[in-house]
Amino acid sequence: MTIGTVETKYLNIEGTIELESGQKLKNVQVAYETYGELNDSKDNAILLLHALTGDAHAAGYHQGENKPGWWDIMVGPNKAFDTNKYFIICSNMLGGCKGTTGPSSINPDTGKIYGLDFPVITIEDAVKVQKKLIDFLGIKKLCVAGGSMGGMQAMEWAIQHKDMVTHSIIIASTSRLSAQGIAFNTVGRNAILSDPNWNNGDYYSGEKPEKGLGIARMVGHITYLCEESMHKKFARRFQDKESPNFNFDIDFEVESYLAHQGQIFVDRFDANSYLYITKAIDYFDLASKYGSLEESFSNTDAKFLVISFSSDWLFPSFQSKEIVNALMKNQKDVSFCEIESPYGHDAFLLEHEIQTKIIKSFLAEDKS
Amino acid sequence: MTIGTVETKYLNIEGTIELESGQKLKNVQVAYETYGELNDSKDNAILLLHALTGDAHAAGYHQGENKPGWWDIMVGPNKAFDTNKYFIICSNMLGGCKGTTGPSSINPDTGKIYGLDFPVITIEDAVKVQKKLIDFLGIKKLCVAGGSMGGMQAMEWAIQHKDMVTHSIIIASTSRLSAQGIAFNTVGRNAILSDPNWNNGDYYSGEKPEKGLGIARMVGHITYLCEESMHKKFARRFQDKESPNFNFDIDFEVESYLAHQGQIFVDRFDANSYLYITKAIDYFDLASKYGSLEESFSNTDAKFLVISFSSDWLFPSFQSKEIVNALMKNQKDVSFCEIESPYGHDAFLLEHEIQTKIIKSFLAEDKS
Repeated sequence: MTIGTVETKYLNIEGTIELESGQKLKNVQVAYETYGELNDSKDNAILLLHALTGDAHAAGYHQGENKPGWWDIMVGPNKAFDTNKYFIICSNMLGGCKGTTGPSSINPDTGKIYGLDFPVITIEDAVKVQKKLIDFLGIKKLCVAGGSMGGMQAMEWAIQHKDMVTHSIIIASTSRLSAQGIAFNTVGRNAILSDPNWNNGDYYSGEKPEKGLGIARMVGHITYLCEESMHKKFARRFQDKESPNFNFDIDFEVESYLAHQGQIFVDRFDANSYLYITKAIDYFDLASKYGSLEESFSNTDAKFLVISFSSDWLFPSFQSKEIVNALMKNQKDVSFCEIESPYGHDAFLLEHEIQTKIIKSFLAEDKS
Repeated sequence: MTIGTVETKYLNIEGTIELESGQKLKNVQVAYETYGELNDSKDNAILLLHALTGDAHAAGYHQGENKPGWWDIMVGPNKAFDTNKYFIICSNMLGGCKGTTGPSSINPDTGKIYGLDFPVITIEDAVKVQKKLIDFLGIKKLCVAGGSMGGMQAMEWAIQHKDMVTHSIIIASTSRLSAQGIAFNTVGRNAILSDPNWNNGDYYSGEKPEKGLGIARMVGHITYLCEESMHKKFARRFQDKESPNFNFDIDFEVESYLAHQGQIFVDRFDANSYLYITKAIDYFDLASKYGSLEESFSNTDAKFLVISFSSDWLFPSFQSKEIVNALMKNQKDVSFCEIESPYGHDAFLLEHEIQTKIIKSFLAEDKS
């Protein structure tokens, strides 16, 4: 059952936001959606944090559309994030391109689109903007939850706002990306930067760097799946034929799939946002920022739930276990579950049944 | 000890070669090198087969150069392929750009560079051209050996020429690439095809598609290493500094490494050759071609040695074991060794000590 028709709302944050880089941002707008009702004591809120290419539209349907939000299988009546019980909030991340201020927004100082004048942002900066939204909604206590980059924000929230965060749910995430993860992001960014249409980030009045962004998405998709899931999905089947083309058109189903994923992505995502957000992901490194991973969590009061997936090689289970170990050394309340799944990193968007059981049970401990 | 100064030689094959696609190639030139001496009975030959970006220059030094051939640690006096005992041959693959006819060669029918008029070639076609070279050298019996794509050729040789191949050494290879492997090649090809300088393959008189080819190489390099080796090599260290740039210049050492690998590659390799050879790799599929993998090897007389590396995720060990199992079902003489190594797919170019022991012992069984 779905939450039904939903609408994106917008908050304009007055004043300036100081960023981790030392730069400042004025007049930040935040796009967000809410599902369910905030109770009178305002203590039933859950903030969902999206991954690299997500947005505020986590659940339900926009008027006239037939594709639900990105985590609709997890958010709604009786679902993992149960809208009968909780007030669910999801906002587009700072630097994004779905209603929250980012490189494709107007720079109030110049009246022109930021492009590369937009400052490089971090996960902490994203949390800072989300905090303004939560304050605006009058919420003092909340649960935070997210997968992949969303999990990074769920950690940063628990660290930065220990008096507010009661529960932090960290799914398919890491306290710092591996060199291999940075390498894949580097390839994606290079594909964008090498596209002549990118034009040093100033392409909004002309052709967009669609080829570069499409290639970045193709690389990304390989890392979201895994060898096993790709084999199950495509094996070595040819696309709509029995034998090879003997040319450089699409031969295999997997080629067709990647080309399709690249194509549909460029219609919905901004290349500069891709640069900024992957950079924020690369920079995230709790151990480096707080001295050690153990030290990072020393000043938190949340209950933690950490979930990883056996076939996720982009944010592998051992990195989740590092987070769990650091929390345990601090004698924090932490639950951990490694879910057996063949779906790779994408599993956090697909494996709703088992995640629903685990998350419901975790939240029910003292929030039912 | 190195073999010393060596020279590339060239053979011009008269007549036409019929390709697996049904197309024909005229006047094919083959670049090759030889090391050691062919004995009087002409039965001490070993043909080395190179990987995607390799060439005929496997060992020793070209006059005036200080970088040895690509497998110099394995080829020379008392090395794995011992030039005191064996006559070693290595030729550039058909479709390559290092002296053997490929898309950057002159099309004799037009007097112009082939570009995309070059026919799509296969591993079997490459073997067919190598066979002409071996015939020219008057060799009737030989050992064939190669890593990665070279291993594919070593298998095809044993299958196509059972009366000639006494030993087939298949290292870090597969009887067919996985969907994930095809996906990575797809990304690399797309990066080239998307580069406006590629110009439908006709770029030899102008700017070359260096950015696209560089990105293809960067993706490739990620797959040749592994998470562990990248972590050991780069971790999350910044390049020549202690903190992030907060811009889109190179931040991390791993970014710098990939950018460097991309840059040096475009100076030595042709983008069209990259397209053609990756396509040949994608198409290689023994089970599909011969009915089943078991059936593929039913008509072979060689002794086989299969070597895989524990951390190779591009040509994973389980794929080598599939080859071994298929050979065993045919009651063929096969030795198998999975080498524990942290170097990923690149291990076949690095782990010379253990490979030397295994290969020497394998060849000594009846070739000493």
